[in-house]
Amino acid sequence: MTYLDHIKACNNANPSRYVPFRIDGMSLGALRPDFATALSALGPDFVRDENGEFCFAPHIGTLDDRNRSLDTATKALCDQGVIRRLHGERFDIRPTLGHDPLCQLDRSAMPYFGFRSWGVHMNGYVQKDDGIHMWIAHRAKDKPTYPGMLDNMVAGGQPTGLGFLENMIKECAEEAAIPENLSRNLKPVGTVSYLYETTEGLKPDVMVNYDLELPADFVPRCADGEVERFELMPLAKVAEIVRSSFDFKFNCALVIIDFLIRHGFLTADNEPDYSQLTTGLHRNIFR
Amino acid sequence: MTYLDHIKACNNANPSRYVPFRIDGMSLGALRPDFATALSALGPDFVRDENGEFCFAPHIGTLDDRNRSLDTATKALCDQGVIRRLHGERFDIRPTLGHDPLCQLDRSAMPYFGFRSWGVHMNGYVQKDDGIHMWIAHRAKDKPTYPGMLDNMVAGGQPTGLGFLENMIKECAEEAAIPENLSRNLKPVGTVSYLYETTEGLKPDVMVNYDLELPADFVPRCADGEVERFELMPLAKVAEIVRSSFDFKFNCALVIIDFLIRHGFLTADNEPDYSQLTTGLHRNIFR
Repeated sequence: MTYLDHIKACNNANPSRYVPFRIDGMSLGALRPDFATALSALGPDFVRDENGEFCFAPHIGTLDDRNRSLDTATKALCDQGVIRRLHGERFDIRPTLGHDPLCQLDRSAMPYFGFRSWGVHMNGYVQKDDGIHMWIAHRAKDKPTYPGMLDNMVAGGQPTGLGFLENMIKECAEEAAIPENLSRNLKPVGTVSYLYETTEGLKPDVMVNYDLELPADFVPRCADGEVERFELMPLAKVAEIVRSSFDFKFNCALVIIDFLIRHGFLTADNEPDYSQLTTGLHRNIFR
Repeated sequence: MTYLDHIKACNNANPSRYVPFRIDGMSLGALRPDFATALSALGPDFVRDENGEFCFAPHIGTLDDRNRSLDTATKALCDQGVIRRLHGERFDIRPTLGHDPLCQLDRSAMPYFGFRSWGVHMNGYVQKDDGIHMWIAHRAKDKPTYPGMLDNMVAGGQPTGLGFLENMIKECAEEAAIPENLSRNLKPVGTVSYLYETTEGLKPDVMVNYDLELPADFVPRCADGEVERFELMPLAKVAEIVRSSFDFKFNCALVIIDFLIRHGFLTADNEPDYSQLTTGLHRNIFR
């Protein structure tokens, strides 16, 4: 296998199989046909327009209207077993970061509606005499999603009401007990985006990424039970795991490839797929 | 204006107006219809297939055959005034960096054939107490292309026969008199790609980018007459020039926006177009 296989794995979706979901005339979501049918059956809040595309009915005109409607719908569909479970945390739905949220949706319902979601990921590393060593998280074996897989040092969804850096600092404290005098060195370094598909639906995701250089004597502590243990590995070893396996949770592999490129480990001279990696990491999911 | 206007300016092309040019069955170039007609009129080396797409005739089967054929054609078309001028330096034509070159073409003829071309760009900077200061080049007023505009500290096309880092080190010496004990700190940091269109044709370009941190006491010297002078500016001033003007040569603005993102100057919290910038800088030109 090659690094490029991770780009392919994270972009496994066939969006043509989905029914567009529009808000204020903008195509922001995409429904599996069977989910669209279940949503229709709930009542008059969701309608199909003349092109067969879904939208809120005209009487659902404000953010509060939309939130009430989504809230009722997701609870009903969860009771029916159409949506597997609800999370409790809510994500903003908006066309771009510069746009006010149009509504909010339970995090676990996001893929059923195919709305774009944002998250934060952090690669923590130590600069040693022999080069960069990276902190890798082993996910807890009892975590409901991707148990036991490798992960970036800290990551989390981007919930309603927090800034991105603010959220990243909070996750650093909660997941790895990183104190604020260290997390204040977090460096925003860009995004990675992909279009993934699961049995639940479509996941057009943007990961907002941070680097954090840590002192050699700092040891992270699993603070909230999401991580079994942290391991500090030479960057070449991390790279080799990514290049030769799917041991990392699918999207975390991309965040590491982006790190390997930005820190000059993968180059135009040593990686035949360099250009396809840099474009593949930044798929345009804003259609 | 916004940073995003630079992405739009560098992606002004309408590829549907061009006729694909295939080599070994792969669509690698694109011709303006009038250039395709002029190429056809030269003789039997270039043919149209059953889909109206251009390719080499079956008797042109090897790299040497293709080079001879392109050489003859470009000289003839230059004599006819169809191609404005030839450069002398040759670029490799290949589908990806991992593929052996299929032929070579004069650098100035590249847009007429619409082949993808690679270049190297370097942002040189000094880390001061008040933050990053960036070295900016003022292009010579008698340069044939983009005279007097602002530019990255060092940049150049990627000619046949050199490695990328090797080429970058050579350009650093030639353009800014940067000695090898400094240029050995060059850090490869990724690519930026775009699809540009001029009166000459299509330019699907990949810029392979490097950062170079320089000591505060180093002063670059204009070594080959391409640059009138170098100026060290606080990063915020460079950012403001890019955000508010087209003073930089079109593609150099993108290399600076990429730097601003990787170094945490533009973030998801302060730049409404953050996600569209990160995807827009990495357009997939590998179709």
